[in-house]
Amino acid sequence: MAPRPVVPIDVKKKPWEQKLPLHNRWHPDILPVAEVKVGEVFRIEMMDFTGGGITHNYSAEDIKYADLSTVHYLSGPIRVLDSDGVPAKPGDLLAVEICNLGPLPGDEWGYTATFDRENGGGFLTDHFPSATKAIWYFEGIYAHSPHIPGVRFPGLTHPGIIGTAPSMELLNIWNEREQDVEENGLKSFKLCEVLHSRPLANLPSTKGCHLGRIQQGTLEWEKIAREAARTIPGRENGGNCDIKNLSRGSKIYLPVFVDGANLSTGDMHFSQGDGEVSFCGAIEMSGFLELKCEIIRGGMKEYLTPMGPSPLHVNPIFEIGPVEPRFSEWLVFEGISVDESGRQHYLDASVAYKRAVLNAIDYLSKFGYSKEQIYLLLSCCPCEGRISGIVDAPNAVATLAIPTAIFDQDIRPKAHKVPTGPRLMRKPDVLKCTYDGNLPTTRNPSITM
Amino acid sequence: MAPRPVVPIDVKKKPWEQKLPLHNRWHPDILPVAEVKVGEVFRIEMMDFTGGGITHNYSAEDIKYADLSTVHYLSGPIRVLDSDGVPAKPGDLLAVEICNLGPLPGDEWGYTATFDRENGGGFLTDHFPSATKAIWYFEGIYAHSPHIPGVRFPGLTHPGIIGTAPSMELLNIWNEREQDVEENGLKSFKLCEVLHSRPLANLPSTKGCHLGRIQQGTLEWEKIAREAARTIPGRENGGNCDIKNLSRGSKIYLPVFVDGANLSTGDMHFSQGDGEVSFCGAIEMSGFLELKCEIIRGGMKEYLTPMGPSPLHVNPIFEIGPVEPRFSEWLVFEGISVDESGRQHYLDASVAYKRAVLNAIDYLSKFGYSKEQIYLLLSCCPCEGRISGIVDAPNAVATLAIPTAIFDQDIRPKAHKVPTGPRLMRKPDVLKCTYDGNLPTTRNPSITM
Amino acid sequence: MAPRPVVPIDVKKKPWEQKLPLHNRWHPDILPVAEVKVGEVFRIEMMDFTGGGITHNYSAEDIKYADLSTVHYLSGPIRVLDSDGVPAKPGDLLAVEICNLGPLPGDEWGYTATFDRENGGGFLTDHFPSATKAIWYFEGIYAHSPHIPGVRFPGLTHPGIIGTAPSMELLNIWNEREQDVEENGLKSFKLCEVLHSRPLANLPSTKGCHLGRIQQGTLEWEKIAREAARTIPGRENGGNCDIKNLSRGSKIYLPVFVDGANLSTGDMHFSQGDGEVSFCGAIEMSGFLELKCEIIRGGMKEYLTPMGPSPLHVNPIFEIGPVEPRFSEWLVFEGISVDESGRQHYLDASVAYKRAVLNAIDYLSKFGYSKEQIYLLLSCCPCEGRISGIVDAPNAVATLAIPTAIFDQDIRPKAHKVPTGPRLMRKPDVLKCTYDGNLPTTRNPSITM
Amino acid sequence: MAPRPVVPIDVKKKPWEQKLPLHNRWHPDILPVAEVKVGEVFRIEMMDFTGGGITHNYSAEDIKYADLSTVHYLSGPIRVLDSDGVPAKPGDLLAVEICNLGPLPGDEWGYTATFDRENGGGFLTDHFPSATKAIWYFEGIYAHSPHIPGVRFPGLTHPGIIGTAPSMELLNIWNEREQDVEENGLKSFKLCEVLHSRPLANLPSTKGCHLGRIQQGTLEWEKIAREAARTIPGRENGGNCDIKNLSRGSKIYLPVFVDGANLSTGDMHFSQGDGEVSFCGAIEMSGFLELKCEIIRGGMKEYLTPMGPSPLHVNPIFEIGPVEPRFSEWLVFEGISVDESGRQHYLDASVAYKRAVLNAIDYLSKFGYSKEQIYLLLSCCPCEGRISGIVDAPNAVATLAIPTAIFDQDIRPKAHKVPTGPRLMRKPDVLKCTYDGNLPTTRNPSITM
Repeated sequence: MAPRPVVPIDVKKKPWEQKLPLHNRWHPDILPVAEVKVGEVFRIEMMDFTGGGITHNYSAEDIKYADLSTVHYLSGPIRVLDSDGVPAKPGDLLAVEICNLGPLPGDEWGYTATFDRENGGGFLTDHFPSATKAIWYFEGIYAHSPHIPGVRFPGLTHPGIIGTAPSMELLNIWNEREQDVEENGLKSFKLCEVLHSRPLANLPSTKGCHLGRIQQGTLEWEKIAREAARTIPGRENGGNCDIKNLSRGSKIYLPVFVDGANLSTGDMHFSQGDGEVSFCGAIEMSGFLELKCEIIRGGMKEYLTPMGPSPLHVNPIFEIGPVEPRFSEWLVFEGISVDESGRQHYLDASVAYKRAVLNAIDYLSKFGYSKEQIYLLLSCCPCEGRISGIVDAPNAVATLAIPTAIFDQDIRPKAHKVPTGPRLMRKPDVLKCTYDGNLPTTRNPSITM
Repeated sequence: MAPRPVVPIDVKKKPWEQKLPLHNRWHPDILPVAEVKVGEVFRIEMMDFTGGGITHNYSAEDIKYADLSTVHYLSGPIRVLDSDGVPAKPGDLLAVEICNLGPLPGDEWGYTATFDRENGGGFLTDHFPSATKAIWYFEGIYAHSPHIPGVRFPGLTHPGIIGTAPSMELLNIWNEREQDVEENGLKSFKLCEVLHSRPLANLPSTKGCHLGRIQQGTLEWEKIAREAARTIPGRENGGNCDIKNLSRGSKIYLPVFVDGANLSTGDMHFSQGDGEVSFCGAIEMSGFLELKCEIIRGGMKEYLTPMGPSPLHVNPIFEIGPVEPRFSEWLVFEGISVDESGRQHYLDASVAYKRAVLNAIDYLSKFGYSKEQIYLLLSCCPCEGRISGIVDAPNAVATLAIPTAIFDQDIRPKAHKVPTGPRLMRKPDVLKCTYDGNLPTTRNPSITM
Repeated sequence: MAPRPVVPIDVKKKPWEQKLPLHNRWHPDILPVAEVKVGEVFRIEMMDFTGGGITHNYSAEDIKYADLSTVHYLSGPIRVLDSDGVPAKPGDLLAVEICNLGPLPGDEWGYTATFDRENGGGFLTDHFPSATKAIWYFEGIYAHSPHIPGVRFPGLTHPGIIGTAPSMELLNIWNEREQDVEENGLKSFKLCEVLHSRPLANLPSTKGCHLGRIQQGTLEWEKIAREAARTIPGRENGGNCDIKNLSRGSKIYLPVFVDGANLSTGDMHFSQGDGEVSFCGAIEMSGFLELKCEIIRGGMKEYLTPMGPSPLHVNPIFEIGPVEPRFSEWLVFEGISVDESGRQHYLDASVAYKRAVLNAIDYLSKFGYSKEQIYLLLSCCPCEGRISGIVDAPNAVATLAIPTAIFDQDIRPKAHKVPTGPRLMRKPDVLKCTYDGNLPTTRNPSITM
Repeated sequence: MAPRPVVPIDVKKKPWEQKLPLHNRWHPDILPVAEVKVGEVFRIEMMDFTGGGITHNYSAEDIKYADLSTVHYLSGPIRVLDSDGVPAKPGDLLAVEICNLGPLPGDEWGYTATFDRENGGGFLTDHFPSATKAIWYFEGIYAHSPHIPGVRFPGLTHPGIIGTAPSMELLNIWNEREQDVEENGLKSFKLCEVLHSRPLANLPSTKGCHLGRIQQGTLEWEKIAREAARTIPGRENGGNCDIKNLSRGSKIYLPVFVDGANLSTGDMHFSQGDGEVSFCGAIEMSGFLELKCEIIRGGMKEYLTPMGPSPLHVNPIFEIGPVEPRFSEWLVFEGISVDESGRQHYLDASVAYKRAVLNAIDYLSKFGYSKEQIYLLLSCCPCEGRISGIVDAPNAVATLAIPTAIFDQDIRPKAHKVPTGPRLMRKPDVLKCTYDGNLPTTRNPSITM
């Protein structure tokens, strides 16, 4: 009756010391570590996405100097068989139900952070170039942080990454298109002048590469490591889609590209806001998933129409069930596609969302918070980021909706003023490092006025 | 006790024949047509955004040849006074509560449409260049359409446009930045190669201009008409923000730029999906609003931190209450920022959302619908468009979530196949015109495979 | 497209002066006043349940001396035909969808009251024997009262009464069984010693009787008036079921007992709490319904299994849709089936619910309210009354859940004390009359301790 | 960070063999087994309410012959101290937050059953006198049963019992009033003629008594066992309140009657319907709770007004949070206070609820289920039992609302008939024993017609 343990984790060990070693790349030749049958409920445990690189320490140094070449550590791959023992085949659809999930027992804490601008950055890294960190503690379904006092909220816990292994053909497509944006993006895309995270793409690198059972130093390892895709972006195979509602009772329909499907998962989030804006951005933690699989034979053709130069240009489908926390009152911040310098962009939802998030940070910092506290909070609390209007040229309208119940004070505007005088700043603040780089910070021109 | 009627509408008359004439531009000098006091509940009626230009006729001809220089017809401006009769002042915040709203009694119908690619376009106009139209009938809170059979849903009714008059200074900012994108956008922004609606911006034009009480042909009219901003995009004053949750019980905090605030509203939507993707895109209708205002003196400085080169670069704030339809099961489609040609974009949520919408259209068309039916449906049903991930370079992840309960069939993927053979196409289809232009349609390269 | 007006109301006229006269009894021979066809959306207007007997006056005198022999004034009966013009037949099921509803335009107010103990009483009349009244004003979907300050809530508006006409056979069953409880109840039922509303049943009376088109004074009128059932209790035909969730988007499956179904409705509630405890107890108002009917031929046998000595002993079925206000936080009060004197009852949910309501009144009165204010509030706000446990002898457990968001203060228990000293009583209070009777009030024995 | 384990359970051992022995009575002298401090999150594990008496066996024999003198086995008592180590005192309020809960890992199954009419009965035991049983298996948050096919639902998991120890004074009050109903109830209460569970009350009995650390056979044990209250009914100390919404994120405010509060809990339910109608009636299981306590000094006087002959006549208060499964569509069955023989009762909500449940059983059995299957299902699925009207003499109106999404078929009435002919009965059925008694079954008189 209990879910069958398939991938165990010992958080005291390194990722490569685990009984079933972890991997941090996508490649068809990464070997399965376990097999499951359709219909059975099985349990996968996972380290946090840095494989223990970020600690419970009250310092942001580990964030500042984090080795991002090694993330994300994934559990798997899992080979999926039907009831007759026949593996999932390319062209099938793998339906994965999330029966249950949570933090690993005994490890009930997490962190939210911003990387240094020279080492990862984040959505607002031009405004907040320093590494910062907040530790969260869990009380059952609730999280609270000594570094962001006055908020407590239930987690809409979910895996940030869940995906199937790509075929070699799909992998090549990825590598080509991403190399193109890495090489030409700065001159092609104005959006790079608004979003300052670098690099533009995360290309394969042998540095930091872990390939599970494939021994480092072998020829095979070298070949795969040079080809294997980084796990940073979400892609056709699912992967790092960071959909915050993929919690208990959800179902994920993943395309199958290789024999057995080779399902991998990781990057567990106790809670995340839409957009995961701070990048290291959910409440990151170790955790477990209890999953149940079904194979829809031929389901890719049946349900997923490809859109692009090949039949592999598909995306997964998701189903969200009735069992998530619901909030009834929301405060909503809006942004339009005009950037901080006042420049007009054309229907760009990313620019609009950046403005909505900046607006929310400024607003909420009036209630006794530092801006860094709010930046981290909006990255990890159950807030909703919406594309409200995408057709009214030249402005896209994006909104960020925040459930008011997560605060211990009424954060709505009131006719009677917010208490003035020297604003009460709540103490302590987030953990923070210096920014030692020399890139210019985006200044809000209207601040000095 | 009844809301005080402030702006009445007779839908049988033209916009300029109304007792209180309508306007379709933003300008500080458009004269108020009425005054209200804080605390009182008042009623504003409004025509549909085309002022009756689109009719109940079962033909899409009126859409194809719609005169877009005249939209949107707005009711107002309303001058807002405090309880002592002192008007709202620049720098104040105007809190507007939506106490109630609905279609105009006796006019319980609406339409959803796509403009011709040469005349307005829409989010997917490169895929669907023809003018199409669907008529919706209302049964109380429910809408159904003879042109999109098998769906029926409750409206999350809201005004597409609500805003205050800009000051001259703000208006100048708008006109400058939008002229810039109109002139330089095609070479500046790669996004223009993915989103094909044109023009890039909607600049002031005397053609089609209506300024309420200001007589056409006068010198004053000429001056204002040349300066006045079009109502198409949402901006600092609110305006066409198309936030679908601004329904009964919501509250809107609008910045005040001119004496009296000069509140205008229009573009009533029986229902809209996030993004309003088809552009003529909600269930467009005439309607009424019952509003209550409050003035927060000095509230702009207190609550809205400007972000940009001037203190006017602000955005409204919204509050959403407990009284909207809730759905418990959703089917979610994902898109990443790789366009239909397979080209990689850098964290562009607009590109990702286009893919999510295209994916949803392809999927749902498997259930007996034409793609045009689904395109219109996703534009007007209560679906949610989310920015799920905006930091995992190079891919933004956007999602489109559709409540499954609006369909009369189970639209979830199933292990047992969707009935095959010649797919049953439901009849009739949306109303449709030919596309007579010669711009190339975006073809899905993988279709022929 | 607009709903067809079927029963119009002029609230300035008496019930018997209406264009289509109202009725306040159930009888198969009350003549239909209108006909509708299945599938069409039609509009029925209705007076408040007293037919204007309770006024907007700031006095409770009209409540104290209300003539309860005349309630409830119902609109109808409506004869329902299928698309071929064939009426609904006994044995059919009439599916009635509530497409829309609301207060009558221009009459946006309501009242909640308790009757004098000698004239109607209520659930807690032994504790609160005086007539009281609160006036509510509507601001769109919201209600607020000058007599119960500090609360404002959205209405879950619904008709208190909706039903079909009984057959003569069913009417006889009603009259016999209710006469029995009226004659023998006091000695049969211990519950009468806990619930003090009298009479025990409301038997037919010619006094106050209105029968629509049947002229008072005729022989026919005399005969029907002597037989016709009062509208006070809900019964097999639906009637006064007071189910607060029968709001927009609900569907009611009513058994058909007479040719044409003869649907009547009335007793419109802007909002009601489960139980409607004060008896005059919802926010009572005039209003309108927009309905759509469907006939399920033979549906009584198909869907309703009778339970009792005849095939007529059935109950309606209801369907509740996705469009009601939702609250996310609730404070819950519990009661067990031990009465105020400490006496143990056997699994009696009515006794338990009385205790839960008393507990809630005592608790909330600590927050600056009089007990009469809370009694009225719990009768009309969207609170939920639940039967939590009905098997754990000897105690039934009932609960009353109150959405915390309706208050302008935090009403949850806190470790830091509620401000003490002389408690601030909010002013003004409910309107109140003296109780001139001499029945003993139920005293809480523990108060003097 | 992990919750401190306070009461461990080994389900392979008997209740009295546990490391911290269990108890199944309420008495002030039952010794605490552990201490906790306010603010700390601690973990209590518990056996199922029968202490393992009901097994996973596919037979209902264990239900038929269950020894009810031994239920419910509770974990605790827990002594609660403030941060200075001072215990909770009589007169305080103990706020207990449920941070998390669930089945015991490795023991993910449960059962729902009806006792034999001669041995426990249930709400409808006169209709269903036989012992029956269904086994449920958990897949994470979902439960499904081989004995009730076609339904699957997420659990709203909660402890059926949570309470503080009574003082001797309160215990005496309980014993006196319950003895009275046991002795005189049959002649006092007509409700006993409708509800046939016997005995009328569960008085103290030394048989089956377990008192934790107090050794059986000692004088102390004898004394306490003769006085100690059974755990069957909910009472002033909380106890078996069976409030199904007391799930993750809830808070319970319990009165403190003895030094240290002496908190006990048990009777874990994976899911329960309002009323728990079958009596053995939730999905009964072993489980764990993660709790956090707060002491509100003097809170009983501050927040709980007693109602009854003593200051001890109080009830707990509960707070329900935002994290429970929500359903958007419901099918609602109504009952009025007329019993199956057609007899009229006076405003009796228990009678009305019995009718509502019977109506629902009859209706749902038309969809391929046996009545026993539905009886068990309604006892354990997340259905809501409401007191809709309690003032319209002589009929109380109670409703039972069932979320339609738990079924794999559309259970709403339809104009097109449910397939007729010999109804397809789903197989298998619930496990069932014979009823060997000779009490008359309540027959529905209208069945033979």
